[in-house]
Amino acid sequence: MTTAPTSSSALHVVVLAAGKGTRMRSDLPKVLQPLAGKPLLGHVLDTVHQLAAERAVVVTGFGAQRVQDAFADQPQLRFALQEPQLGTGHAVQQALPQLPDEGVCLVLYGDVPLAPAASLLPLVAQAQGGALALLTVELEDPTGYGRILRDTDGAVLGIVEHKDATPEQRAVRECNTGILCAPIAHLRRWLGELRNDNAQGEYYLTDIVALAVADGVPVRAATVADADDVLGVNDRSQLAHLERVVQGRAARRLLDAGVTLADPARLDVRGALHCGRDVFIDVGCVFEGEVHLADGARVGPYAVLRNVRVGAGTVIHPFCHLDGASIGAGALIGPFARLRPTTALADGVHIGNFVEVKNGTMGNDSKANHLSYVGDASVGARVNIGAGTIVANYDGANKHRTVIEDDAHTGSNSVLVAPITVGAGATVGAGSTVTKAVPAGALTVARARAVTLEGWTRPVKKK
Amino acid sequence: MTTAPTSSSALHVVVLAAGKGTRMRSDLPKVLQPLAGKPLLGHVLDTVHQLAAERAVVVTGFGAQRVQDAFADQPQLRFALQEPQLGTGHAVQQALPQLPDEGVCLVLYGDVPLAPAASLLPLVAQAQGGALALLTVELEDPTGYGRILRDTDGAVLGIVEHKDATPEQRAVRECNTGILCAPIAHLRRWLGELRNDNAQGEYYLTDIVALAVADGVPVRAATVADADDVLGVNDRSQLAHLERVVQGRAARRLLDAGVTLADPARLDVRGALHCGRDVFIDVGCVFEGEVHLADGARVGPYAVLRNVRVGAGTVIHPFCHLDGASIGAGALIGPFARLRPTTALADGVHIGNFVEVKNGTMGNDSKANHLSYVGDASVGARVNIGAGTIVANYDGANKHRTVIEDDAHTGSNSVLVAPITVGAGATVGAGSTVTKAVPAGALTVARARAVTLEGWTRPVKKK
Amino acid sequence: MTTAPTSSSALHVVVLAAGKGTRMRSDLPKVLQPLAGKPLLGHVLDTVHQLAAERAVVVTGFGAQRVQDAFADQPQLRFALQEPQLGTGHAVQQALPQLPDEGVCLVLYGDVPLAPAASLLPLVAQAQGGALALLTVELEDPTGYGRILRDTDGAVLGIVEHKDATPEQRAVRECNTGILCAPIAHLRRWLGELRNDNAQGEYYLTDIVALAVADGVPVRAATVADADDVLGVNDRSQLAHLERVVQGRAARRLLDAGVTLADPARLDVRGALHCGRDVFIDVGCVFEGEVHLADGARVGPYAVLRNVRVGAGTVIHPFCHLDGASIGAGALIGPFARLRPTTALADGVHIGNFVEVKNGTMGNDSKANHLSYVGDASVGARVNIGAGTIVANYDGANKHRTVIEDDAHTGSNSVLVAPITVGAGATVGAGSTVTKAVPAGALTVARARAVTLEGWTRPVKKK
Repeated sequence: MTTAPTSSSALHVVVLAAGKGTRMRSDLPKVLQPLAGKPLLGHVLDTVHQLAAERAVVVTGFGAQRVQDAFADQPQLRFALQEPQLGTGHAVQQALPQLPDEGVCLVLYGDVPLAPAASLLPLVAQAQGGALALLTVELEDPTGYGRILRDTDGAVLGIVEHKDATPEQRAVRECNTGILCAPIAHLRRWLGELRNDNAQGEYYLTDIVALAVADGVPVRAATVADADDVLGVNDRSQLAHLERVVQGRAARRLLDAGVTLADPARLDVRGALHCGRDVFIDVGCVFEGEVHLADGARVGPYAVLRNVRVGAGTVIHPFCHLDGASIGAGALIGPFARLRPTTALADGVHIGNFVEVKNGTMGNDSKANHLSYVGDASVGARVNIGAGTIVANYDGANKHRTVIEDDAHTGSNSVLVAPITVGAGATVGAGSTVTKAVPAGALTVARARAVTLEGWTRPVKKK
Repeated sequence: MTTAPTSSSALHVVVLAAGKGTRMRSDLPKVLQPLAGKPLLGHVLDTVHQLAAERAVVVTGFGAQRVQDAFADQPQLRFALQEPQLGTGHAVQQALPQLPDEGVCLVLYGDVPLAPAASLLPLVAQAQGGALALLTVELEDPTGYGRILRDTDGAVLGIVEHKDATPEQRAVRECNTGILCAPIAHLRRWLGELRNDNAQGEYYLTDIVALAVADGVPVRAATVADADDVLGVNDRSQLAHLERVVQGRAARRLLDAGVTLADPARLDVRGALHCGRDVFIDVGCVFEGEVHLADGARVGPYAVLRNVRVGAGTVIHPFCHLDGASIGAGALIGPFARLRPTTALADGVHIGNFVEVKNGTMGNDSKANHLSYVGDASVGARVNIGAGTIVANYDGANKHRTVIEDDAHTGSNSVLVAPITVGAGATVGAGSTVTKAVPAGALTVARARAVTLEGWTRPVKKK
Repeated sequence: MTTAPTSSSALHVVVLAAGKGTRMRSDLPKVLQPLAGKPLLGHVLDTVHQLAAERAVVVTGFGAQRVQDAFADQPQLRFALQEPQLGTGHAVQQALPQLPDEGVCLVLYGDVPLAPAASLLPLVAQAQGGALALLTVELEDPTGYGRILRDTDGAVLGIVEHKDATPEQRAVRECNTGILCAPIAHLRRWLGELRNDNAQGEYYLTDIVALAVADGVPVRAATVADADDVLGVNDRSQLAHLERVVQGRAARRLLDAGVTLADPARLDVRGALHCGRDVFIDVGCVFEGEVHLADGARVGPYAVLRNVRVGAGTVIHPFCHLDGASIGAGALIGPFARLRPTTALADGVHIGNFVEVKNGTMGNDSKANHLSYVGDASVGARVNIGAGTIVANYDGANKHRTVIEDDAHTGSNSVLVAPITVGAGATVGAGSTVTKAVPAGALTVARARAVTLEGWTRPVKKK
C-alpha cells in the first residue's frame, strides 16, 4: 500500500508501443497480440491501473490507429505518435509534451506484459526521492544484455552493452530491463541531450543513465525476482512461452485457493475464473471471459466455458461448450452439450448429449437429455423435452419465442413451431409438429396412420 | 516374495489419517482427496493389502465418520479415533489397544499415498529381527526435514530436526520420512515414555528413535529410491504433482507393455487399463474404472472411457464418451459417440456421430451412424438405424423396451415408440412414427401426403 | 545445394531394416511403426530422397514382405533380404550385389528416423574424397556407447566399445552412431574381411573402422548437433520420445513462420500443415495429412483436421472433426461439426453443432446450424437447412443424390428422401418428409393435423 502521491511527485507513465514486431510476421501490431486472451498492451495498462498513475501516455507508431481503437473504452488514456521511429529515447520524447513539468515518469513497454506493480512501486518511490531508478534482472545467461555496473557500495555507475563489455563486466549477471522511472524534469533534460551517433542512428533511452551519472543524480536499481516478469515478446515462440507462464501462474493461484486441477499444465484461463470451495477441474478445460464455479462444482475433461456461471454441486460432463449461460445448483450438463447466450437454467436442470439451448430459460428440474435444439424458449419447471425435439424459432426470416409451461412433455422428434405455447402439463406426441397452442393437461398428436405395404421390396444394391 | 510371518512376528499396520489438511481448503478430509480417481488413503490401504498385514488400524480424527464410511467395503479394517489430535505419537497410541502384544507394527500415513510395498518389506524384516526400522529418503534439498545421523559404520544414531542441526548435520541429505516399523512391545513402551514438552505441545512419533537408541535397540534405515514415493500431500499443488507422478508411471507401464501412446504426458488412467498387443492410444484420452482394450484396438484423440471393454481391432474415433459398455471386435465407434451403461455391441457394429446408445444391445454388423438415440432396445444383426431415428423408451413416466429384429431398417427421423417390435427385415419409412408392431419383411410408413401451397410467401425479415 | 554426383562418385544408400524390434512387443515390423503418422522407415526414405541418392537398397528381414508392401508406391526402391540376421555388417553385405563397383555407399538405419540430410552430406563428400566417414554424436552420458578415438590432430583412430574402454577412453563423450559412408569398393573388401568371433557370433559393421585404419584409408567423422537426430527406436518409450521431438520441431517451425500456437506442447501434426499469415491454433489440435489454413484462419481447441483446406478468415469452433473437406473464406464451422470426404463448402457457409456433411457441396452463405445430416447433396447458395433436417441419401441399398437449389429453406426435422430436387426458393415445412421434387418458390408441407385427446392421462410411474 502506498500513500497517494502528492501533486509534485505524481506518477505518470509512458508506454512504448510503436514497434511493428517484424519477427511476429503479423499484420496485427505487436502490442495487440493476445496473451491469455488480452492484448499485450492491455496487460501493461492493467498494471498502470494498479499503480494508480495520474496519466498514461501510449506511444504508438506501427498500426497507431488500430492500437488506439483497441483501447477506445479507456478514454482517460492518451496517445502520442512516434513517426518515424528513431529509438526508445525518441519514443519517450514524443510523449513528453503531454506530461507536466513536475512528478515522475515511469517508462514501460507494450511488449513486456508481465512487469508486476509490486516490482515497479520501489522504482516510483526512488524517482520520487529524486533518483533515476532502473528495473534490473539477474539472468542465468546474460549474453546480449546490457550489464549493470555498480561500485563497491552497490551504487549504480552505469550500463555497459554486451558488445562493449570487458570479460569482467560480462561476468555480471544483473542486466538492464529498459524499465525505468525518473523525475520528469530530469528526464526532459536528458532526452534533449541524447545523441544518435551509433550504428543504427537511433536515440537510446538507456543513454540517460550515463547522463544521470554525469549530472550527479543518484541512480538506483531494483531487481525483479522472476525473469519472466520482464520478458519481452519479439516472436511467436516468446509469445507462446509467456502464454504458458501466465497459465502456469493462473493454475498455481487456483491450486493455492483450494481448487483441484487434474493437470495444472492443461488448463487455460483467458479472463477471470472464480471458484468456490472444493471445485474440481478436469484436464484440458478452457475458460474465457468471466466464469464463476460455485462450491462443489465439477467440470469434466475438455470443457470450454465462456462467460458462464455454474451453480453449487453442478456437474459439467466432458466435451461441453458453454457460452453466455447461467446454470443453477445441482444441474447435470453434457456430455456434448452446448449452451449459447443468453441461457439461464434453474436448479436441477439436466441437459444431455447433442443438445443445444440458445437464448432460453428452463425452470427447476426440467430436462432436455437427447439431440434437441431449444431456441428462444421459456421453459417451465419439471418439463421433459423429448429426444430429437426441435423448438423451431426461425420462420426463415425472423425468430419467434416459444413458451413451454410447467410439467409439459414433448415427444421424440416433435417440432414446436414458434410462436407457440405448450400448456402446463400438456403432452405433445412423438413425431408431432405443432404450430398452434397446445392445450394444457392433454395429449396433442399430429401424426399420420401407419400403413404397411406388403408387396414392397427393398431396393437391391447396384453393382 | 516373503514367507508368511509367524504369529510372533506378524505384521500389523497403523495408518495415520486424522489430519484435517487445512491447506487443502476443503470440506473433504484430506485422506479422502482423490488421486488418480482413488482416495489417498485408498492407495495406502492397497499397499497394506499387498503387504498381507494381519491387521490394519486407521487412526481417524477430522471427518472420522466420513473416512470410515468411505471404506465400508473393507470390513476387516479397524478404526481408532484420535480426539483431540496431539501429534503423531499420540495418534499411534490410539491404535495400540487394537494391536496384540507380539508382532511388529508398521506406521504409514494416509496422506503419503505412494510408499511402495517393495520399500516397506525391508523395514518389516528388520523389525521382525528386533530393530526399529526407519524409511529414509535422499533429498536434493533437505531444508526443513529431519536428518538421519549415522555413526562411521552407518548405524543410525538418531534424527536431528533441521532447526536444531549443526551446519555439518544440515549437509546430510538423508532424511526421515516418518514411516517406521518396530516390534509392538517396544513401540508400546516407547510411546508411553513420549513427552510433549515442545512448542506445539505434541507427542512426536519421531522421538521414539532417541528412546530406542537409549534402550540399546538397534535402529536400522532403508532408503527409497524415488523421493516421490514418500511425498506427502498437504496442499492442492502437491496433490496435482502426485497426480502427474502416478499418471507418468501408468504411462510408462503401458509403454513398457507395448502400447503406443501418442503423448505419455497427455494420458489419464483412473483405475485399471488392460491392453492387448499393438494397442494405440491417441492424445488426451481419459480412462476410468476397468477398461479393457483388446489386440489392435485404436483409441482416437480425446476419448473418455469408463468401465468399457473394446474388442480386437475396434477403432474408437475422436471425441467419444463411452461408459459401462462392451464393444465387440472390428467395430467402428464415433466420432462424437456416446455409449451409456449397460450397452453391449457385437462385432462389426458401427456407431456414428451424435449417436447415443443406452442400455441396449446391437447384433453383428448393425449400424447407427447419424444423430440417433437408441434407448432400452434389443437390436438384432445387420440392422440399419437411419439418421435421426429415436427409439422412444420413455412414456413420460416409465421406460419400455424396443425389439428390432435382424435386417430391419429404420428410415430417417423415424420414431419407434416403445414397447414395440420391428420385425425381421422390416423397413420403417422415413419420417414415420410407429407405435405398434411393425410386420417383418414389409415397408411400414406413417406419413402425410405432401401439399404445395403455391400462394404462400415466405415471411420477410422485420427491421 | 550440392552438385549432382559424377557417376564414379554417385551416392548409393543402404538402409538396414531387418530387425524385429522385440522390445516393441508388436506384430508390426519395427521400421513400420508410425512416427508423426509415417512409418519410421518412411522418414529415412524421405531423407534418402532429399539426398538425391542414385539407388537405395532396403535390407529387410523380419516381416520383409510387409515392409516391401508398405512402400509399394516407391518402385525405384530396391530390397535385399537378410535371412538369417547375422549382424549389421552381414546386413550391408546382403545389399552389395545390388550396388555398382564405383561410387559411395551411405549406411542408414530404418529405426533411426531423424538423421537429417544436412548432417549426412558432409559424410558423403568425405567418402567421395576416398575416406570412410562416420557420423558421431556428443552425448551427455555416453555410457554403453562406442567411443570415437582420435589422435592429437583429431584424426579418427578407431572406435572402442564401452565395455572394452579404459577409464580415459570412457571419459570421451563423442560416440559412434553407426551411420557411415564409404567408397563402395573399400566397403566391399572390408565386409568380406569381417569376422564373427564375438559373443553374439555376429558380423559388426563397426569393425570396418579398424580395417580402414589398417588399410591406411583415412577415417573422418562429422558430429550431429542434436542427439535426438540419431536416436534409435527400440521400445515404445523411445518412440514416444521421438514423437514429441518431431512434434516440438513442427511447433517451432510454425511459430517461426508466424503462427500463433496457444500451447506448442499440445499440438500434433502428422503430415504437412501449411499456414497463411496470422493463423491461430488453439490447444489440443491434431492435423493429419495435408492441411491448409489460409490467412487469418482460426482453429479452436480440440479440432481434428485431416486433409482439409480452410479459407481465409474462417473460424473453426471447438470440437470439430473435419476430414477430406474444403472450406471457403469467412465460414463458421462448429462447435461439434463433422465434415466428411468429399465435402466442399463455399465462402460464408455456417455449419453448426451436431451437423454432419458428407460428400456434399454447399454454396455461398448457406447454413446448416443444428442437428442435421447432409449426405450426398448439392446445396446451392443462401440455403437454410433447418434444425434436425436429414438429407436421406440411403434407401437401404444404394446412395442417391439430393439437389437443393439456391435460397431454399428446409423446416425443422424435415426429411428429404433422395433422389430429390428442392427448387430454388422453395420452403419445406417443419416436420415434413418429402420424397418427390419440391417446386421452386412455394411452401411444401407433408404434415398431419394436430388432434388433442382431452381424455388422455399421462402414464404413472410404476413402483
